[in-house]
Amino acid sequence: MSLDTETIGEDVALLEGMRTARAIRRFKSDPVPPELIRKVAEAGTFAPSGGNRQPWVFVAVTDAGRRREIAAYYKKAFDAYIEPARKAAADPGFPSSRRKAMEGAIHLAENLADVPVHFFVAGWTRRGQEQPQSIFPAVQNILLACRAVGLGSCLTTLHRAFGKEIDELLGLDENQLSYALLPIGWPRGAYTKPLRRSVDECLFFDRYRRP
Amino acid sequence: MSLDTETIGEDVALLEGMRTARAIRRFKSDPVPPELIRKVAEAGTFAPSGGNRQPWVFVAVTDAGRRREIAAYYKKAFDAYIEPARKAAADPGFPSSRRKAMEGAIHLAENLADVPVHFFVAGWTRRGQEQPQSIFPAVQNILLACRAVGLGSCLTTLHRAFGKEIDELLGLDENQLSYALLPIGWPRGAYTKPLRRSVDECLFFDRYRRP
Repeated sequence: MSLDTETIGEDVALLEGMRTARAIRRFKSDPVPPELIRKVAEAGTFAPSGGNRQPWVFVAVTDAGRRREIAAYYKKAFDAYIEPARKAAADPGFPSSRRKAMEGAIHLAENLADVPVHFFVAGWTRRGQEQPQSIFPAVQNILLACRAVGLGSCLTTLHRAFGKEIDELLGLDENQLSYALLPIGWPRGAYTKPLRRSVDECLFFDRYRRP
Repeated sequence: MSLDTETIGEDVALLEGMRTARAIRRFKSDPVPPELIRKVAEAGTFAPSGGNRQPWVFVAVTDAGRRREIAAYYKKAFDAYIEPARKAAADPGFPSSRRKAMEGAIHLAENLADVPVHFFVAGWTRRGQEQPQSIFPAVQNILLACRAVGLGSCLTTLHRAFGKEIDELLGLDENQLSYALLPIGWPRGAYTKPLRRSVDECLFFDRYRRP
């Protein structure tokens, strides 16, 4: 059976948007209009959440002093995280695709203070429990909305190493926490298809089979 | 300042797709071509993940016997979950929008066995830890891809109440688990804008302020 799924009247732009929403880690310094921040945040609100509780709280940090503080925490967390990867990358057999991603991550860590918007996706806990299943779908919508309006971003969670300090800086209540930090700005690079394993390695019908 | 963000050359279809990806809980019984399942799964693979590790494993259950088993577990978990909501809904002051959502949830729980595809988004743990931040962005991509090709779905995690039993049924390894169950089929209802709080209640600049 070979069904031409292209003829089903699908929304090609929506699929193509997802296909090309590569992580952007290098940004121009131009500011981002608050209206666009509001627009990408709004896309986040259309994500699903358990019991439609919509536990998200978005904090878009644009103040330069605050961004410097956040970047300092991020750099500290990053240095601890990247050390093993740096050592692995010294090996000549280290894949060049991973080296490129690592260079992007290093660039971001060293220049985070200059990224115009530090967009935090925070949320309410529920009975003391984190609710990632009701937060990360909104995160993905925001990343896709950035792509849709021409902004760049990427998903980071490293700031959690200093979660307490950063949540205090963001003015969050005790029963709220920041799950993700999305640096947002105008991309220096182009949106392209990200490097991924083929779906045929990930998809199983009826039952998982060890490869 | 009133910038007309509509003129920035944004990808309206992508934004509109997110805006109208309402949870679908009522399905036709028509089967779903495996090519379309592959297509929505592929959209999942374009999501970001920590260190680009792509920990996801997709298991699309179409076998009727297995779907009955899964539906039986789901119903058991659902009945325990819905009881407090049913009691609350008996109050005449219970909001009609929430009553409608509850009716949809009840319909799904009672008819899950007949939904043609039980699409599980599973994934590898990392150092024994769950990685929801690297799974739920893929979940959201899959939901949006369903919407893009005209399929319906919704995000459920209730099956986790019987996670051990279901992961075994799915043939998952010990260091894998199923995070989400997305029932997929052709929608009976229309895609519409879901009911959400205004973004202006959720978005804060620089610092959260208690309303």
